[in-house]
Amino acid sequence: MNWKLAARTGAMNPSVLREILKVTERPGIISLAGGLPSAKTFPVAEFAAACAEVLQQDGKAALQYAASEGYGPLREAVAGMLPWRVDPAQVLILTGSQQGLDLVAKVLIDAGSRVLVDTPTYLGALQAFTPMQPQLVGVASDEEGVLVDDLRRQAIGSGSEEAARFAYLLPNFQNPTGRTMGDARRRAMSKTASEIGLPIVEDNPYGELWFDEPPPLPLTAHNPDGCIYLGTFSKVLAPGLRLGYLVAPKAAFPKLLQAKQASDLHTPIFTQRIVSAVMKNDFLSRHVPTIRALYKSQRDAMVEALQREMKGLDVQLTIPRGGMFLWLRMPEGIDTVALLPKAVERKVAFVPGMPFYASNGDVRAMRLSFVTASVEQINTAVGILAQLIREELGCQRG
Amino acid sequence: MNWKLAARTGAMNPSVLREILKVTERPGIISLAGGLPSAKTFPVAEFAAACAEVLQQDGKAALQYAASEGYGPLREAVAGMLPWRVDPAQVLILTGSQQGLDLVAKVLIDAGSRVLVDTPTYLGALQAFTPMQPQLVGVASDEEGVLVDDLRRQAIGSGSEEAARFAYLLPNFQNPTGRTMGDARRRAMSKTASEIGLPIVEDNPYGELWFDEPPPLPLTAHNPDGCIYLGTFSKVLAPGLRLGYLVAPKAAFPKLLQAKQASDLHTPIFTQRIVSAVMKNDFLSRHVPTIRALYKSQRDAMVEALQREMKGLDVQLTIPRGGMFLWLRMPEGIDTVALLPKAVERKVAFVPGMPFYASNGDVRAMRLSFVTASVEQINTAVGILAQLIREELGCQRG
Repeated sequence: MNWKLAARTGAMNPSVLREILKVTERPGIISLAGGLPSAKTFPVAEFAAACAEVLQQDGKAALQYAASEGYGPLREAVAGMLPWRVDPAQVLILTGSQQGLDLVAKVLIDAGSRVLVDTPTYLGALQAFTPMQPQLVGVASDEEGVLVDDLRRQAIGSGSEEAARFAYLLPNFQNPTGRTMGDARRRAMSKTASEIGLPIVEDNPYGELWFDEPPPLPLTAHNPDGCIYLGTFSKVLAPGLRLGYLVAPKAAFPKLLQAKQASDLHTPIFTQRIVSAVMKNDFLSRHVPTIRALYKSQRDAMVEALQREMKGLDVQLTIPRGGMFLWLRMPEGIDTVALLPKAVERKVAFVPGMPFYASNGDVRAMRLSFVTASVEQINTAVGILAQLIREELGCQRG
Repeated sequence: MNWKLAARTGAMNPSVLREILKVTERPGIISLAGGLPSAKTFPVAEFAAACAEVLQQDGKAALQYAASEGYGPLREAVAGMLPWRVDPAQVLILTGSQQGLDLVAKVLIDAGSRVLVDTPTYLGALQAFTPMQPQLVGVASDEEGVLVDDLRRQAIGSGSEEAARFAYLLPNFQNPTGRTMGDARRRAMSKTASEIGLPIVEDNPYGELWFDEPPPLPLTAHNPDGCIYLGTFSKVLAPGLRLGYLVAPKAAFPKLLQAKQASDLHTPIFTQRIVSAVMKNDFLSRHVPTIRALYKSQRDAMVEALQREMKGLDVQLTIPRGGMFLWLRMPEGIDTVALLPKAVERKVAFVPGMPFYASNGDVRAMRLSFVTASVEQINTAVGILAQLIREELGCQRG
């Protein structure tokens, strides 16, 4: 048969992360690789009660086709949760916030369009944007994320370049680096984006997972007409439902909705109603603090283990104030892509930093998740990694 | 802000069907428009039991991230249900079979690619394909669907045209026409497609909803390497779960999987496990016959009402042997798009035929669903439609 594939498939590649996750499913492997929330935090009993309630009270409606925009009460609940004034009519319920990235790509990217991203950035966003064949431009970043001056320069473009279509930013406890953009940077960023007319796609999966104090207001709160905001229930309830949302201004909402409808008609109404039922009586305000406390203690354990085990090695550490990930920079001479199979041989998995870069990746970077493994496993795994790094450096010097 | 939308959004339009469905949600309207399965058939009690079982036995796994391919036991169940030999490794679980159309579009369509469709065809497929900017080519069709000779001619193309990328076909109780392709036509179609190397995307949402005898073997069964097959649980269990699947040959599966992963990471594992649990002990073999019996009696009621009320009018009727839809051709002089608002004024809704055509639509065509409304409502609605048509024709003659 003449299966002629579309040109865009040439840029679509198997996810490195996904292939790694397969390896880490082998028994006996301690995985610091995946981005899986701790299953300990899933409110199973509340879900069971919500399923029973929804099916008893509204079973037929919960199993029927539904509106592409999403379930009305859930759209209202989302609008009410967000820290700026949101009209529920601007909320679109998604089959996971990953779907929002796919819709954004379809609606805003032409082949060759310039799209600005953090250095490094969320791998899933690169994968969602790539099929629409953009030119992905990494903006220079520091410990707070994207630098405003470089954003301005790259947004405008040089010579005959078209202005960037949008910047994709993840200001809270970023994946993969764990870093957070401060309030002053956010204000400067919003001001600059408004001045030059640069739309921002703000992804905020981790914002609720703060350890000591909430992060500053989202970029979108400063300029709702200039931003598309993505959120999710994956990190505060459970990812297996694939339930997320976006908030978009009137300039972008209708086309995002049409793209959503063509993609899967609507997000499962059954899971939308269940999550609505679970969230009644302010459940999240009691539940989310238990996740924060657990993740904070896990972060502390990992930081302690790293400081203890990696002592004397030139390892740089970005200590996150929330979220799920910790970012390391290995000593000179260590290539984390080459290190991974050796670590897996010793039953430890991590994610090399390279796939998170639009270009010019840092071969010494490494992402560790501190939320999936137990404290004991973290201690064991970090010890094994440190030993491996020492051996590698020893070999190189020897 | 400078919201510059992608060129493809120019071809994306609000769904006519969707806008109509909004109208039909008004109280007091009898809708023969939507494609909603009868909620009477939803096995609510079985879903409640399955939810309780899944959450009790495997709650944490049912709420965690999962594989993009889908839940292993569900992939095996799908492979086992299909009437040809299917390797579960070739089954991809979808967030509704609509998602399969989106993935097919991403993987097989470049801007300008020629894609062959039935005349008329499923509107949701046109909407899913359009964002990838194909040239949609309607193939001449008769009461069994696409004509083999015209398919061959259009597939090859004329002059400098590239060969068609694929043909999208819906051989069983088609939406919108209700027609079914006979076995001889299927064999001839498969033979021709193999000879000229034309891939077929076979959509089969309605195949299980036969009234007197099962439809012939799917096209894919004759040539699995040349076809992508789409199926769904929406019509045999419930659409609100958004659970479908595709079966693809090795030449197309890996890229479809990568596109799936970029689109929403994976289909909700919670709903996948629930449907797996519901289907245990051969539930569908007892449940689906009850849907068939109900829909057959509804079809009979609608055919009787039409034959009674439309008597003497030159209305042509395609009587379906399964599925959910009945296709009508109004007398000369009736434009069903113009008729719709008048019918809605009298509290009856239907779908005009026009949006189902890739080009050169039939203004006299109309689709009626016989599964959502009650028999009493069907009788009332068909009476009102007949009266309206008589008045329209009278005005034109008067």
